[in-house]
Amino acid sequence: MPLPEKALIARIRRSATNGRRVVTGIGDDSAVLAIPKGHQALVTTDFSLEGVHFRREWHPPDSVGHRCLARGLSDIAAMGGEPITAFLSLGLPRDLPQKWVDAFVRGLLKLAADYGVSLAGGDTAESPAGVLADIIVLGSVPRGKAVLRSGARPGDRIYVTGGLGASAATLKLLFAGKGRIRARDFQQHFYPNPLIDVGRFLRENNLASAMIDISDGLSTDLSHICEESGVGAEILEEAIPKAIIGRPAREVDLRAALHGGEDYELLFTAKRGKRIPRKIAGVGITQIGRVTRGREIMFINQYGVGQELHSQGWEHFRR
Amino acid sequence: MPLPEKALIARIRRSATNGRRVVTGIGDDSAVLAIPKGHQALVTTDFSLEGVHFRREWHPPDSVGHRCLARGLSDIAAMGGEPITAFLSLGLPRDLPQKWVDAFVRGLLKLAADYGVSLAGGDTAESPAGVLADIIVLGSVPRGKAVLRSGARPGDRIYVTGGLGASAATLKLLFAGKGRIRARDFQQHFYPNPLIDVGRFLRENNLASAMIDISDGLSTDLSHICEESGVGAEILEEAIPKAIIGRPAREVDLRAALHGGEDYELLFTAKRGKRIPRKIAGVGITQIGRVTRGREIMFINQYGVGQELHSQGWEHFRR
Repeated sequence: MPLPEKALIARIRRSATNGRRVVTGIGDDSAVLAIPKGHQALVTTDFSLEGVHFRREWHPPDSVGHRCLARGLSDIAAMGGEPITAFLSLGLPRDLPQKWVDAFVRGLLKLAADYGVSLAGGDTAESPAGVLADIIVLGSVPRGKAVLRSGARPGDRIYVTGGLGASAATLKLLFAGKGRIRARDFQQHFYPNPLIDVGRFLRENNLASAMIDISDGLSTDLSHICEESGVGAEILEEAIPKAIIGRPAREVDLRAALHGGEDYELLFTAKRGKRIPRKIAGVGITQIGRVTRGREIMFINQYGVGQELHSQGWEHFRR
Repeated sequence: MPLPEKALIARIRRSATNGRRVVTGIGDDSAVLAIPKGHQALVTTDFSLEGVHFRREWHPPDSVGHRCLARGLSDIAAMGGEPITAFLSLGLPRDLPQKWVDAFVRGLLKLAADYGVSLAGGDTAESPAGVLADIIVLGSVPRGKAVLRSGARPGDRIYVTGGLGASAATLKLLFAGKGRIRARDFQQHFYPNPLIDVGRFLRENNLASAMIDISDGLSTDLSHICEESGVGAEILEEAIPKAIIGRPAREVDLRAALHGGEDYELLFTAKRGKRIPRKIAGVGITQIGRVTRGREIMFINQYGVGQELHSQGWEHFRR
């Protein structure tokens, strides 16, 4: 077993004690968890692999830890759920500096603490190549109230939170290798906020008919809602909110906003006539289009001319 | 995304429909699961990494899939719980033959079907090196009834299921590279049975005071029970049941039985005077010693001479 493992388990054990609903955490064969009465369990798993989801030369270790957990929390947000606890399976190369591991765990635990989430277990192993992390988040939602991808109906309006394309545009700069990219100027890419409060508000107030988080890009994630709901969509070019990134701050291009992944904004639909606030939990909400009877996603440009929008798979670093 | 992914998701989707308690499986941001009334949730995660936990030249792909899920199910067995559903995060190298992936999934799903477990989700990614699998098993246990590692008390008797050391002894043969190792002659290594029924029987009849599965080896796993319970132990050399492997069948050596991991037998303690059946669900049960007030684990040889037994960490392929 790699050297960092013992320190890691010790750290996780310390953080594991403060879980409200964790009856037994690290130190047994399984974690034992209490799901609140009248609730269902939510479970999501997400890989963070070196060279696929992050690069050690680009991403500070605390950003890698933060993003690792943010991916899982965002999936819980997209169901309108509340996270309870997380599990981390972590494969570390033998030569990885202890300092890197410490900062990774620190980044992950800081985000966990911000959301009242404990770390209740996981697995560790020596990795044959690169850092391998798999995050599992367990959450809960009142019985039958999870906001699914399959609930969109023709006539529903389509909304997104925040601005889109920040992460993809930041990656483009990293690829180009021009100038210095300081993590603090590109928060949405390095330290994305999972929108738990927004998802919960929408669920509690019965506002969203379908929801997904934008991890693969608007064009792809909207197609997921359309497929699962058996509907089409129409979105307006001029309505797409483009993210603002960097210093000096500038707007990302349309391509990043339409197809860029890993923004962890929420995309949801709501019945026509539902009053959707302009801001929820401090996050701006923008109507970008409507659900249609067809099966295609139509993209209407500023001159009112429509063309079919094809989803462009977000393949992380391979473009 | 690697080519096998679509076929994989299609396969998993098909298998995902038959989950009793899976309200929403693959095809949404999280799975939605119903935990039975009055029960707590159990969650366990286990890596299966190529080169660390298996080798493609030694292990047929269906064995790798089987062992991957067996590791998780065995953790649920060791709590006295019942498995509900599994999640698979799978990283595949780009050049992996589709045939290999199909057989891997087949092996995993066959074991899942044997135990009434569905596959409710997971993640896929291209792996930078080797096959990476992380299995998450979610189960349940009646509230407050999980059999923990921490319940052993001085005077309790110590028991194991089946025979020990089969997996380590088989690996030794694989390392030596002598003769042909046919998977069907070494079932315990290639296709281990998670002992869900045994664990559940012990829990339902309130027989076990502490329990763990033997994944790291008897000496290590017994030390886990002792540490968590704050006790010591005394075990008898002549009582240790050694596994029978191969064709012609032969008994493994004492070293494999004492220190070999990945047997997935159960190790448990029971109050003195509890009547423990000789067989549970067809599996033999052997008393191997007793819990003591000390902190050491004493190993008593056939002449009645005792020495301290140190746990020897089971490090898979690195020995």
